[in-house]
Amino acid sequence: MIAHFIIVHCAAMSKSTGSCQGFLHYVFDYETPKTLVIPSIRVGFVFRFIQFLVALYVVGYVCVVQKAYQETDSVISTVTTKVKGFAFTNISDMELRFWDVADYIIPPQGDKTFFMLTNLVMTPGQTQSRCAELPNPSTTCADDCDCIEGYNDPRGNGIRTGLCENYSSTVKTCEVLSWCPLELDTKLPKRALLAAAENFTVLIKNSITYPKFNIHKKNILPHINSSYLNTCEFSRKTDPDCPIFRLRYIVSEAGEDFQDMAVKGGVLGILIDWSCDLDWWAGKCHPKYTFRRLDNTHPFNNVAPGYNFRFAKYYKTPKGEEQRTLFKAYGIRFDVIVFGTAGKFGIVPTIVNVGAALSFLSLVPMVADWFILTCMKKRDLYSRQKVTYLVEEPEKESTSMSTTYGTQ
Amino acid sequence: MIAHFIIVHCAAMSKSTGSCQGFLHYVFDYETPKTLVIPSIRVGFVFRFIQFLVALYVVGYVCVVQKAYQETDSVISTVTTKVKGFAFTNISDMELRFWDVADYIIPPQGDKTFFMLTNLVMTPGQTQSRCAELPNPSTTCADDCDCIEGYNDPRGNGIRTGLCENYSSTVKTCEVLSWCPLELDTKLPKRALLAAAENFTVLIKNSITYPKFNIHKKNILPHINSSYLNTCEFSRKTDPDCPIFRLRYIVSEAGEDFQDMAVKGGVLGILIDWSCDLDWWAGKCHPKYTFRRLDNTHPFNNVAPGYNFRFAKYYKTPKGEEQRTLFKAYGIRFDVIVFGTAGKFGIVPTIVNVGAALSFLSLVPMVADWFILTCMKKRDLYSRQKVTYLVEEPEKESTSMSTTYGTQ
Amino acid sequence: MIAHFIIVHCAAMSKSTGSCQGFLHYVFDYETPKTLVIPSIRVGFVFRFIQFLVALYVVGYVCVVQKAYQETDSVISTVTTKVKGFAFTNISDMELRFWDVADYIIPPQGDKTFFMLTNLVMTPGQTQSRCAELPNPSTTCADDCDCIEGYNDPRGNGIRTGLCENYSSTVKTCEVLSWCPLELDTKLPKRALLAAAENFTVLIKNSITYPKFNIHKKNILPHINSSYLNTCEFSRKTDPDCPIFRLRYIVSEAGEDFQDMAVKGGVLGILIDWSCDLDWWAGKCHPKYTFRRLDNTHPFNNVAPGYNFRFAKYYKTPKGEEQRTLFKAYGIRFDVIVFGTAGKFGIVPTIVNVGAALSFLSLVPMVADWFILTCMKKRDLYSRQKVTYLVEEPEKESTSMSTTYGTQ
Repeated sequence: MIAHFIIVHCAAMSKSTGSCQGFLHYVFDYETPKTLVIPSIRVGFVFRFIQFLVALYVVGYVCVVQKAYQETDSVISTVTTKVKGFAFTNISDMELRFWDVADYIIPPQGDKTFFMLTNLVMTPGQTQSRCAELPNPSTTCADDCDCIEGYNDPRGNGIRTGLCENYSSTVKTCEVLSWCPLELDTKLPKRALLAAAENFTVLIKNSITYPKFNIHKKNILPHINSSYLNTCEFSRKTDPDCPIFRLRYIVSEAGEDFQDMAVKGGVLGILIDWSCDLDWWAGKCHPKYTFRRLDNTHPFNNVAPGYNFRFAKYYKTPKGEEQRTLFKAYGIRFDVIVFGTAGKFGIVPTIVNVGAALSFLSLVPMVADWFILTCMKKRDLYSRQKVTYLVEEPEKESTSMSTTYGTQ
Repeated sequence: MIAHFIIVHCAAMSKSTGSCQGFLHYVFDYETPKTLVIPSIRVGFVFRFIQFLVALYVVGYVCVVQKAYQETDSVISTVTTKVKGFAFTNISDMELRFWDVADYIIPPQGDKTFFMLTNLVMTPGQTQSRCAELPNPSTTCADDCDCIEGYNDPRGNGIRTGLCENYSSTVKTCEVLSWCPLELDTKLPKRALLAAAENFTVLIKNSITYPKFNIHKKNILPHINSSYLNTCEFSRKTDPDCPIFRLRYIVSEAGEDFQDMAVKGGVLGILIDWSCDLDWWAGKCHPKYTFRRLDNTHPFNNVAPGYNFRFAKYYKTPKGEEQRTLFKAYGIRFDVIVFGTAGKFGIVPTIVNVGAALSFLSLVPMVADWFILTCMKKRDLYSRQKVTYLVEEPEKESTSMSTTYGTQ
Repeated sequence: MIAHFIIVHCAAMSKSTGSCQGFLHYVFDYETPKTLVIPSIRVGFVFRFIQFLVALYVVGYVCVVQKAYQETDSVISTVTTKVKGFAFTNISDMELRFWDVADYIIPPQGDKTFFMLTNLVMTPGQTQSRCAELPNPSTTCADDCDCIEGYNDPRGNGIRTGLCENYSSTVKTCEVLSWCPLELDTKLPKRALLAAAENFTVLIKNSITYPKFNIHKKNILPHINSSYLNTCEFSRKTDPDCPIFRLRYIVSEAGEDFQDMAVKGGVLGILIDWSCDLDWWAGKCHPKYTFRRLDNTHPFNNVAPGYNFRFAKYYKTPKGEEQRTLFKAYGIRFDVIVFGTAGKFGIVPTIVNVGAALSFLSLVPMVADWFILTCMKKRDLYSRQKVTYLVEEPEKESTSMSTTYGTQ
């Protein structure tokens, strides 16, 4: 229509000026290369074979294997966790004690990172007061002169009062102002206190979103019903869709032993891979669970091995004095890490990849030409008919040009 | 300059050897296809029209709609939250009680995930002691013989002592060692305890970074002043930039009813979309807030519906005995989820996309050629002048050819 | 082989039909453009120079600078932190007090976000009771009539009882039911209580994974041994690999003063950049640490400046009454933010980028042709030999071709 308009418009003014005609010719004259057909099976075969290889790469590798025609988006996710189980401890210096979720899960909220207490050094009844330092070469003393008042050793446990006190019947150490009695963390049980924790289970609820594709998924799949959920337990072989995990199973899948790990603690990753292929003919979007130990277990540069932290419960004595029970808590921190990329057919990546392939296809004639003009027996014949050299004297040659045309 | 050097260099040694001349010809002879001009408006129009379509795709779709010429980067962000408000509860078995932030926000730090306590089953005065199990078919007993000492039912609440005790005047159950009295979580109030929480407000401070582009932004926009912040409240229509949200508004925007959700709890996502177009002519980079319920509300596979967790406050009795108040806390967990991608003009993606478009443009002559040689009336004429077939008798033609070579 | 099969197959049936022969020709005839060689150094040089520029862009910019031939993956990471240090406070209204990790780190678990308490407004001994409101224009009263019973001011501190009580000897305010005594947060110390925290150190353990490349790394590098870790301290110049950071150093690297920041609190980002080049000839994958203040310090729209939150420790009095100590905790929240992208040679991005470059190379002849036909002195000579115009009556007109040229 536009072209029609231009033509009519040009026709109207063509009598006065010839420039419009020139413009029309410039825009709409079609210039096409003159070609030579070489009816050689060998040449043709080489040409088609290379074309076939390029097409194979595009269809086979780029589209099927790499799915490069897809747009991608990163996952955003929310996790809630809920641990179930209880345990008893019966250690010599503690009475028989019952532990439930509120005691051993820290923080209690069931976030994507939760800490399962498995071992413990407890120092009850600490108050702000004075006591003798733990004995080591820099704290032992003979008399008060060895203890400078107000000295504050960064590796010690408090500020020195200037007195030298009996730590035990045999050792005297400098007295410090601190939370007393001091923690004696060499008392850590050799066998984990809450060894029974290996039988606890954790329910992981995970919902994800791919905002670009407006996809919302949950790790409790639609075909799962409540009665199954009440009884199932994750197992890679028999129950790969069950979102309830026994802690021992998680740790053993990560290649560790629960009882070993429970003594000094550690960090264990529960990795949920939500890589999705959202093309309508694929439509696969299931979570895949893997488990890995995440903290440093390298024996050579392993400072502060395992995983532990200190926290305290604060009390008030009947007299109103503040008192605390200090816990050095060892245990396994479980980090639920959700990752993944969704891919879906996208017009831009498709165009880009097909375009790149076409570029390579446009190289094929160059290769074929090179092959013809160097490797074939008749290369001189081909070359003579394909390639013309510029003739410098145009006036005289123009007649022979038409002669050449005539022989075709 | 390099070419000039080569020429001079070659000229100097051209007399001794002719190979340099040959090399020069090989590198700098320009080989261009011979072309045929077809002055047909129809052909030209088809050709230009297809070219126009490809160009339109590149400019219109790839550049304007998809912004494929942009490099992208993912957001990294920090969030702090602060809830304000207080409430009173006046339940039959609890006295009139005042609740402030320190009571109902868990954890208290104002992280990107915060829990608003709305409902509660409280079990005060628990101690490590013995009590009768909650009655259910597996715990009821007639006499001590029904209760095996040391038996540890995973669905029970403790370790059996071997005694059968009165749970009530009518039911006898096995006695267990546990935190006693046991929690009776059927006592959950039908109407949420902290129903007043719907009027609380939360201030969300969010700062983001796009490290690749060295862009730092905050959700408190530069044009907002302190007096506005002290009084404003987010509303999609009237105050879309105010970072203070009323909890009821958040929940209703997510399509839920606050009072319903408050009874059993749930997880609510506050999604902040920081998708930015950082091209200098665009420069738009504002947060967009959306709200979505994130936990499973599917009636069919809804195990452990809502959101709750147990935590305890620990006390010491005047005698030094440990006591705790167990809370089964129901409430709404708000997850502030920040996501987004920034795009900015990048030379590599631009080149790649324009290159792909050029590949398609190079297909257009093929299509036009096919159109000419099959669909046009004069196709035989065109074909005769465009395509030459190889002439097999080289001997005769070679003489005139070699003449041509000779003139160079 | 396929071609051979087709030929044999065609030969077998070639006698009955000629269509197979036609198909063979259609598929395997090789059509190549006829070309004209122009032996001009200037033209050749322009052509080669533009080709060189395009090749330079591909090799130099796309491959070396932008590494566009790489596939990329985003990092997933886990962080644990451990703060060390203790401090004493000796404020007039508090006795000499010792603070250790369990007192000042909230939450205690050593997560990637940890809060270092530096300043404090403490309100001990709060109980659910009645007390006079803090004085301000809306709470002062002359007698009971000014205080409406049950009124619940959102900016107040509790529900009014209807009485007007003495707040001090000079001011009377309405009595409220609340946690009493009320917090008086104007008592915030001008100099941070835990000013000594600047000398505390934090050990950051960070392990990362690039799932696509199956790469696992830790920020404690393999060549670091335990004895170095026990003594080292991060310094950009002398110890860039040590994972132990002095808090003062972190804050000063972020361009802030620790003592200033400690008074009102703030949010400080410890950014770990794990950008990796995983090509085998590069293999560099080290963490880079940077530090930035993340909260809003803009003086104009700075509502609730700094960083603080309220939490409480709950006690029971000997009579069983609930009591709490309310803390308004000011301090520095350290957010360890791990980000990064790994790149590794990938066949698809390489093909796409080379393809795009080839597209541009295919433009070069067009540019060179345009240059020849418009800018060169001999452009008419070139044009005549390169371009042929369609001859309408092929048989008769072939001689008049040159005539057509003449009339233009």
